[in-house]
Amino acid sequence: MTLSGKVPSSFPAVRIHPRDNVVTASRRIAAGEAIGDGVTAETAVPMGHKIAAVAIGAGMPVLKYGQVIGAATRDIARGAHVHVHNMEMCDVRAEIAVNAAPVPTNTAAERHFRGYRRPNGTVGVRNYVGVLTSVNCAGTAARLIAEAAEKTGLLADYPGIDGIVPISHGTGCGLSDKGEGFDILRRTLWGTAANPNFGAVLLVGLGCEVVQSAQLAADFGLRGRDDFQTFTIQDVGGTRKAVERGLDALRELLPVAAAARRTECPASELRLGLQCGGSDAWSGLTANPALGNAVDRLVALGGTAILSETPEIFGADHLLAARAVHPDVARRLAARLAWWEEYTTLHGAQMNSNPSPGNLAGGLTTILEKSLGAVAKAGTSPLVDVIEYAEPLRRNGLVFMDSPGFDPCSATGQVASGATLIAFTTGRGSAFGFKPSPSIKLSSNTPLYERMTDDIDIDCGGIMTGRTTIEDKGKDILDLLLDVASGTRTKSEELGYGGIEFVPWQIGAVM
Amino acid sequence: MTLSGKVPSSFPAVRIHPRDNVVTASRRIAAGEAIGDGVTAETAVPMGHKIAAVAIGAGMPVLKYGQVIGAATRDIARGAHVHVHNMEMCDVRAEIAVNAAPVPTNTAAERHFRGYRRPNGTVGVRNYVGVLTSVNCAGTAARLIAEAAEKTGLLADYPGIDGIVPISHGTGCGLSDKGEGFDILRRTLWGTAANPNFGAVLLVGLGCEVVQSAQLAADFGLRGRDDFQTFTIQDVGGTRKAVERGLDALRELLPVAAAARRTECPASELRLGLQCGGSDAWSGLTANPALGNAVDRLVALGGTAILSETPEIFGADHLLAARAVHPDVARRLAARLAWWEEYTTLHGAQMNSNPSPGNLAGGLTTILEKSLGAVAKAGTSPLVDVIEYAEPLRRNGLVFMDSPGFDPCSATGQVASGATLIAFTTGRGSAFGFKPSPSIKLSSNTPLYERMTDDIDIDCGGIMTGRTTIEDKGKDILDLLLDVASGTRTKSEELGYGGIEFVPWQIGAVM
Ligand SMILES: [Ca+2]
Ligand SMILES: [Ca+2]
Ligand SMILES: [Ca+2]
Ligand SMILES: [Ca+2]
Ligand SMILES: [Ca+2]
Repeated sequence: MTLSGKVPSSFPAVRIHPRDNVVTASRRIAAGEAIGDGVTAETAVPMGHKIAAVAIGAGMPVLKYGQVIGAATRDIARGAHVHVHNMEMCDVRAEIAVNAAPVPTNTAAERHFRGYRRPNGTVGVRNYVGVLTSVNCAGTAARLIAEAAEKTGLLADYPGIDGIVPISHGTGCGLSDKGEGFDILRRTLWGTAANPNFGAVLLVGLGCEVVQSAQLAADFGLRGRDDFQTFTIQDVGGTRKAVERGLDALRELLPVAAAARRTECPASELRLGLQCGGSDAWSGLTANPALGNAVDRLVALGGTAILSETPEIFGADHLLAARAVHPDVARRLAARLAWWEEYTTLHGAQMNSNPSPGNLAGGLTTILEKSLGAVAKAGTSPLVDVIEYAEPLRRNGLVFMDSPGFDPCSATGQVASGATLIAFTTGRGSAFGFKPSPSIKLSSNTPLYERMTDDIDIDCGGIMTGRTTIEDKGKDILDLLLDVASGTRTKSEELGYGGIEFVPWQIGAVM
Repeated sequence: MTLSGKVPSSFPAVRIHPRDNVVTASRRIAAGEAIGDGVTAETAVPMGHKIAAVAIGAGMPVLKYGQVIGAATRDIARGAHVHVHNMEMCDVRAEIAVNAAPVPTNTAAERHFRGYRRPNGTVGVRNYVGVLTSVNCAGTAARLIAEAAEKTGLLADYPGIDGIVPISHGTGCGLSDKGEGFDILRRTLWGTAANPNFGAVLLVGLGCEVVQSAQLAADFGLRGRDDFQTFTIQDVGGTRKAVERGLDALRELLPVAAAARRTECPASELRLGLQCGGSDAWSGLTANPALGNAVDRLVALGGTAILSETPEIFGADHLLAARAVHPDVARRLAARLAWWEEYTTLHGAQMNSNPSPGNLAGGLTTILEKSLGAVAKAGTSPLVDVIEYAEPLRRNGLVFMDSPGFDPCSATGQVASGATLIAFTTGRGSAFGFKPSPSIKLSSNTPLYERMTDDIDIDCGGIMTGRTTIEDKGKDILDLLLDVASGTRTKSEELGYGGIEFVPWQIGAVM
């Protein structure tokens, strides 16, 4: 079995996975037009819609992404348009057996990057110094400390440090001091401080907030480390003294961070967060499967990829569960989905990924097809673990971390879990970057890439036009990830993104 | 009736309101010590605890802040320590009649400040240009636009503009596109854009977010105005083009803002947001009543003050309702309190202001006494209106705006409602500042003021030591507010606060 799909020999129809029995029109196809592999379109088919690549008998599964997306409601001839008129949603649970066996991962030839191996063994790809904050009230002080460090040229002696990053946020007080929201916030702050892309961290608090910085440092084993310091504005006597105290702390922390050197590290040390935002009809056909191909390659090298954005996998979650390496992993995924149904119901919202009228017009027929387009960015590797938002990674391989679909919030959790790189697919052109973990952006279509070249690192639009294949793009993405991990700057780093995108998931009442 | 309380002729006991039958020890008082007005302490009394200024018969109300805070459970002699051993909570509703008549406001001699009268008639005290954002994803672009404007010296020609303020936040997408959370966010963004402290506003969107900037501009009448522009990053083709487009927009907006001139305006045009954060045992005895005195003076001049932080008035809400100018106003306040009980219950949190063990040790006996300490910053004026978070102000006078107690979130709503100034009391030393509306900070105790002189504008600690009175401090606060309204910079402005403290209240599921 190959790791990825291929396009048919000729444009204008794309097959995502070799097992698929439908292909997708990459432009409007005329009646009678040959679409490759000897298939001829029976009728005119709009761009984005499906065509049967082989005959599909009534009741038989329709396969896309190598997965069941529904069943034929009548016999479908080779070359026929496949949509709501001849297929429908089927009982996925009954079909799961088809996919139950985990896809075996190949052991690829070893590859390397030049990263920062930290004292605890984890490997960073950047060497930032963070000025974190326990509460919004310390945000301006953190910014002033970073600005003062820049003005006084504190970094001039340390070319090996990528920068001082002030990170503020909108919470830390006005929340209950126990329960899920409190735990998540503390986990997020600690996990961010512990991310190996930080060579050292200063945590600034106000003093009277619900999230106490000293307690956080004590509870998470940060106290007494030479790469971590914390103080509160109230203890040092106000903003101006906090800036002085912050500069003193940086003078001690910078040499610690600067002592780190890049060394050769195996690709198995990479931890990649997967994101998609501003998706379009092509995201699930080009950028997401291409990223999925890169993920399968990374996993085959022993590396780690983190799929998240729980509301966006709704409907395809059973298929993801079927790839779990252990029933407990599948059960934990189901538990998170159940949590989300309760959470959204409680708030009078709905977690409904059913194709919208716009989706249907674009050729998406079932909820499975739609959600599989999002899940495609995780490739076909087995699911080795399910963790909660901002929980530390425990296993290498493909991991699911629960999170909202809101990109900055989801990425914040992944980075707190330990992601040192982010790969972000977009069809409409998300403006996104993160610190301390760099983000590469992948466009689903070439017009977007041409419009936003300054923002997009890799264009996957060529998959639609036959100029390239999912497999080749997967190779390119992995190559770029290794380069970025070794120090090559991404487009969003060149632009200066990061910091503002730190958005801890806020659950519970703001009081 | 006077507008405020007075201290007894001699230290060490403070009477908050002339009607009070108890005073509060401003230091530890020894048994037999004379505490002024001919009263002698019967026993030793710890700092912060109450002493009967007159004999109080069993069942009679105990009065502090000119309000009922409980009832005597036995006869209390003049000079006796008053606490849980001889008083308890009583049925407040039964006592409300005592306070039901609105306190009449005096018509003070007219006072003025030099403000910016905007085309719609509202008056600003600053002349900023805002770069607002509909979604977190546009936050970095807004920051880059403001930085580029500074680098290119765009402001050099416009000394009459106070600065370009980029304002980002952590939401705008990943939320339901209908319901309370969505409405609040749109109201907050619009209200902030409409605040008269902005001479012009640029609103930057990403393009695919839930909160659409063009729709917002259309719905709230911002479109077509010469002091407002909006565009999305996706429409203009990425971050770098967004910065160019943003600079172009600023080149058009800056002359519009710069055309504004300060002119003499009556104090009745001032709109003051009231905040307290990091309170201590003295907040309710010094800084809050002193601010309340200033509020009564401002209201007597026809001006507006906004009390908020609903969870912190819990328990004293019936007394506030009793000051309502119309039963509908009282009913709306009760409705907001009911909403909060439901909201916190839904989230498994509690809105419980009952004195904590620490509060009890500090001398606070009942929930009424504790909450009245927070409400004291609103003075004694009639309550003319109750509005929801970020709803536009409709009436001059003392207004209640519903909000969480979390300071940045509460202040964000007040400024969106129209507050052009903020007065913030603190006992532990909150680090707070806001843009576009300047904030003055008031310390409840002198050691705090001395420790954080760079942050605190006015020390109210002298009220405890008899060096000054609530009335004199109230005058000082109003004088400073008028000066600040005319252009004098506050401590937090000098330090560079503002922008990061913009925290719209997030209600509902993050998805
Ligand atoms: Ca998505
Ligand atoms: Ca997303
Ligand atoms: Ca998104
Ligand atoms: Ca408070
Ligand atoms: Ca507060």
